[in-house]
Amino acid sequence: MPLPHVSSPKPRIVIVGAGFGGFQAAASLAGAKAEVLLVDRNNYHTFVPLLYQVATGQIDPSCVAYPVRTLLRGIPNVQFLQTSVERVDFRSKLIGTDHGPIAYDYLVLATGAQTSYHGVPGTEYAFPMQTLGDAVTFRQHLFRQFERALVTPDEGDRRRLLSFVVVGGGPTGVEMAGALAELLKGPFRKDFPELAGQWRLVLVQSGPGLLSAFPQRLGTYTHRQLDKLGVDIRLNSRVQKITPTRVELPDGTIAAETVVWAAGTEAARPDLIDSVADTRKGLLKVGPTLQLEGWPNVYAIGDLAQVDYGKPLAGVAPEALQQGVTVARNLRRQLRSHSPKPFQYVNKGRLAIVGGYGGVGQIAGIPFSGFLAWILWLMVHLIYLPGYRNRLLVLLTWVHNYLLQDRAIRQVLPWGKF
Amino acid sequence: MPLPHVSSPKPRIVIVGAGFGGFQAAASLAGAKAEVLLVDRNNYHTFVPLLYQVATGQIDPSCVAYPVRTLLRGIPNVQFLQTSVERVDFRSKLIGTDHGPIAYDYLVLATGAQTSYHGVPGTEYAFPMQTLGDAVTFRQHLFRQFERALVTPDEGDRRRLLSFVVVGGGPTGVEMAGALAELLKGPFRKDFPELAGQWRLVLVQSGPGLLSAFPQRLGTYTHRQLDKLGVDIRLNSRVQKITPTRVELPDGTIAAETVVWAAGTEAARPDLIDSVADTRKGLLKVGPTLQLEGWPNVYAIGDLAQVDYGKPLAGVAPEALQQGVTVARNLRRQLRSHSPKPFQYVNKGRLAIVGGYGGVGQIAGIPFSGFLAWILWLMVHLIYLPGYRNRLLVLLTWVHNYLLQDRAIRQVLPWGKF
Repeated sequence: MPLPHVSSPKPRIVIVGAGFGGFQAAASLAGAKAEVLLVDRNNYHTFVPLLYQVATGQIDPSCVAYPVRTLLRGIPNVQFLQTSVERVDFRSKLIGTDHGPIAYDYLVLATGAQTSYHGVPGTEYAFPMQTLGDAVTFRQHLFRQFERALVTPDEGDRRRLLSFVVVGGGPTGVEMAGALAELLKGPFRKDFPELAGQWRLVLVQSGPGLLSAFPQRLGTYTHRQLDKLGVDIRLNSRVQKITPTRVELPDGTIAAETVVWAAGTEAARPDLIDSVADTRKGLLKVGPTLQLEGWPNVYAIGDLAQVDYGKPLAGVAPEALQQGVTVARNLRRQLRSHSPKPFQYVNKGRLAIVGGYGGVGQIAGIPFSGFLAWILWLMVHLIYLPGYRNRLLVLLTWVHNYLLQDRAIRQVLPWGKF
Repeated sequence: MPLPHVSSPKPRIVIVGAGFGGFQAAASLAGAKAEVLLVDRNNYHTFVPLLYQVATGQIDPSCVAYPVRTLLRGIPNVQFLQTSVERVDFRSKLIGTDHGPIAYDYLVLATGAQTSYHGVPGTEYAFPMQTLGDAVTFRQHLFRQFERALVTPDEGDRRRLLSFVVVGGGPTGVEMAGALAELLKGPFRKDFPELAGQWRLVLVQSGPGLLSAFPQRLGTYTHRQLDKLGVDIRLNSRVQKITPTRVELPDGTIAAETVVWAAGTEAARPDLIDSVADTRKGLLKVGPTLQLEGWPNVYAIGDLAQVDYGKPLAGVAPEALQQGVTVARNLRRQLRSHSPKPFQYVNKGRLAIVGGYGGVGQIAGIPFSGFLAWILWLMVHLIYLPGYRNRLLVLLTWVHNYLLQDRAIRQVLPWGKF
C-alpha cells in the first residue's frame, strides 16, 4: 500500500531524488525514528560517472543502474515510491506527484542537475549525456552510424556519418572523447576495416584549455594524450548552431550527424510554490547546515544545492554523498530536538580518465597524471559503484576490454529513440 | 564499401538470417572459395533459448545478443550487411533489400520463425517471446506493473495488475511460467512485501498435458513442479479473446493486463517471387540435401524449412546448427562441382527447465527429470552460448541468482514500447 494513504505517528521524511545525495541520505537514515520515503522517477540509482562507458559500448546499462529496492531490502523504515515530483509546497508541507500529493514533516530535495544548452540553436539534434537513457540512445545511434556508413557509396556522406563532435572540455567531454577515440582506433577498425581511416573526432572547448577545474599542467597532459589518440581539439571555440547534418563553429562548419553535448548543467528542480534564494543556474542556496533559509525542515543537497561554504563546490559525486550523510545526521538531530550542524566537506581529490592507460588526478593538492591516475580512477569507481554484483561485472568487463581492446556491447537493439 | 557494388570473380553465396542456422553456415564457410555475404536485420545473433531469462530480469540482453561482426573478424571471406530482406527472386538470382538488390550465385534462406497468433482476437495486447526486443519490452512492462500495483488502492485493480497469463504449454511457456513463479515467490516478495500474496500466475495449454513433445511422464512431472510453484494450470483450454484488461477462456475470464503468448510459430519469410512448395505454416519444403525443389542453388534451413526427412523435426536449435554445417558442406561440394549430400540429423536429445532446480530431459530415448536435468540444461546452454565473455557472465549471473534467489536486472529503463 502506498505511504500517502497511511497515517503514521512517526514523523515522515521525504527524500526527492535517488541520485548520490538522496540515495546516501536514505541509507544513512536506516533505523532513524522516522518513516522515510524515497521517491524517484526511476526505480534505480544511476551511477553517472560511468555513463560514458555505457554510451561507448563498454559496460552494460544494468551495471550502472542499481535498483533502489535492492538497497532498501535491509532498511525497514525506508520505503520507495517510483513517481515524478512536479510541485513542492513548503507552506503546506506537500509534494505533488503523479500519484497525488504526499505530506512530509521533513523534506530533502536531491533532484540533481540536467543538461543546460545555453540557448544554442539546434541542440535538439545533440546527444546529452546526463541519464542512462541518454547513454543508451547515444550507443544505439553510434553503432547504427557505422552500419550506415558501410553502405553509403558517396565519400562525403560517409565522412559525415563517421564524424563525431564532443562539445565541452570538462571531465565528461574529455572522458567521452577518449573513449570514442579508443573505440574508433580499436574495435571499429576490426569490425569495419574498409572504413578505418575515414572517421573524424572533434572536441570543442570554449575556454583556453581542457579540464579547467584541474591544474593547468594536467590540462596540457590531457590535450597531448587526446591529440595522440587522434582527437581534433578546438580551444577557445563555441558551438553556434547545430543542424541534423552539421555543427557551426566560429571558424567554420563541421559536417557531422553526431554531437555529444557535455557543455554544462543546471539545476533540475520541481516547481517550488514558495520563492527561494537561488543562483543563475537555478541552484538552491542553502546555509552551512544544508537547510533552506526560512524553511528549517527543508534541506537541499547535491548538484541541486549551492552551499554557503566559502569557495564553491565542484558538483562531483563525493560532495553529494557527504551531504547525504550530513543531512541524515542533521535530521536525526532535529528529531531529537537538537540543532543541525554545519556540513564539512572532506575533499578527497579529483580524478579523470583520458583514454586507455592515461588519466589525471589531484589528491591533497598534488597533481599527477599517467598510468597511476588511470588505475586509481578505475579503483575508486569500482569501490563507489553500488552492489557487489556490479563491481565484479564491471571489473571483469574492464579486464576484457583493456586486454582484448574490445567493446562487447555493440548490438543495435530494437529500441530507443533514433 | 558494400558488397553489392563490387564485382567479384569468385561465386557469391548470400545467407539471409543470422540465427542458429545462418550464423553456423557462415562460420562453416570460413575459407571456402567463395565470397560469402551474411545479412540480417539486426547486427547481432540472438540466443533465443535464454530470452525468457532476459524477460524475467535474470540476465542482461547483451549476454544473449552476440555481435555478428565479432564472429566474422576471424573470417575474411565472409562479410556482413545489416539490412532487411523484403523480396527474393530465384529466377534473377537477386534479393531485394533496404539497400537495393543484391545478386547471388548461391542462396541460403535462414530467416527462422515468428510468433503465430492463430487469428485469436486481441493478441496485439499480448507479449510475444520470439525476439530480444520482445523479451526486453516484456521485462519493462513486468517491473512497471509491480510499481503500479503498489500505488493502486483498489484491490481488484491491484490483483489485475499482478495477474500474469502464459499461453502455451510447450518448452517456452513452461520455462516462462517457471521463471515468473520464481521471480514472484522470491525477489518480488522481498521488494514488495505488502503485495506478496496478491499475485496470480496462470498457464493455459490447449492440449491435455504440458510439454507434449516429451514423454508423458515428463509432462506430468512438469505439471506437478509448476503446481508446487503456485502456477494455476489450465489444460484443454484455449484463449478465445484478449483485451487490455482480461483474457477470455472457455470456462471463464481472467482479469489480467499481462499475457505472454508462447503458443506457436510460423515461418518468417521474405516475399518469394517464384512459387514454392510450402506447408500450412509457410515452411519451405526442402529435399534431403536442404535444396529447394527446382532451384539447386537455393537452400532453406532452420525453422523456415521443412526437411523431407521421414518424421518431422522439432524446430530446436541443434537442428538448425546441424543444418548450417550441412549446407556449408554442400555448398563447398557444389563449388567443386560435386553433388550435395543428404542432411543427417543427430538427435542429441532435448531438455527443458522447470523453475529452480527442476528440469526434464530425454537423451538417447531415455527420459529423466529433476535436478540432473536442470543442471544439464544450464551446462548445455552455457556451452552453446556464443562467446567466452557471455559464457562467463551468464555463469556468474546464474550463481548469483540461484544462491541469492535474486534477479538483478529489475530496472525499468526509460525506453521500449509500453
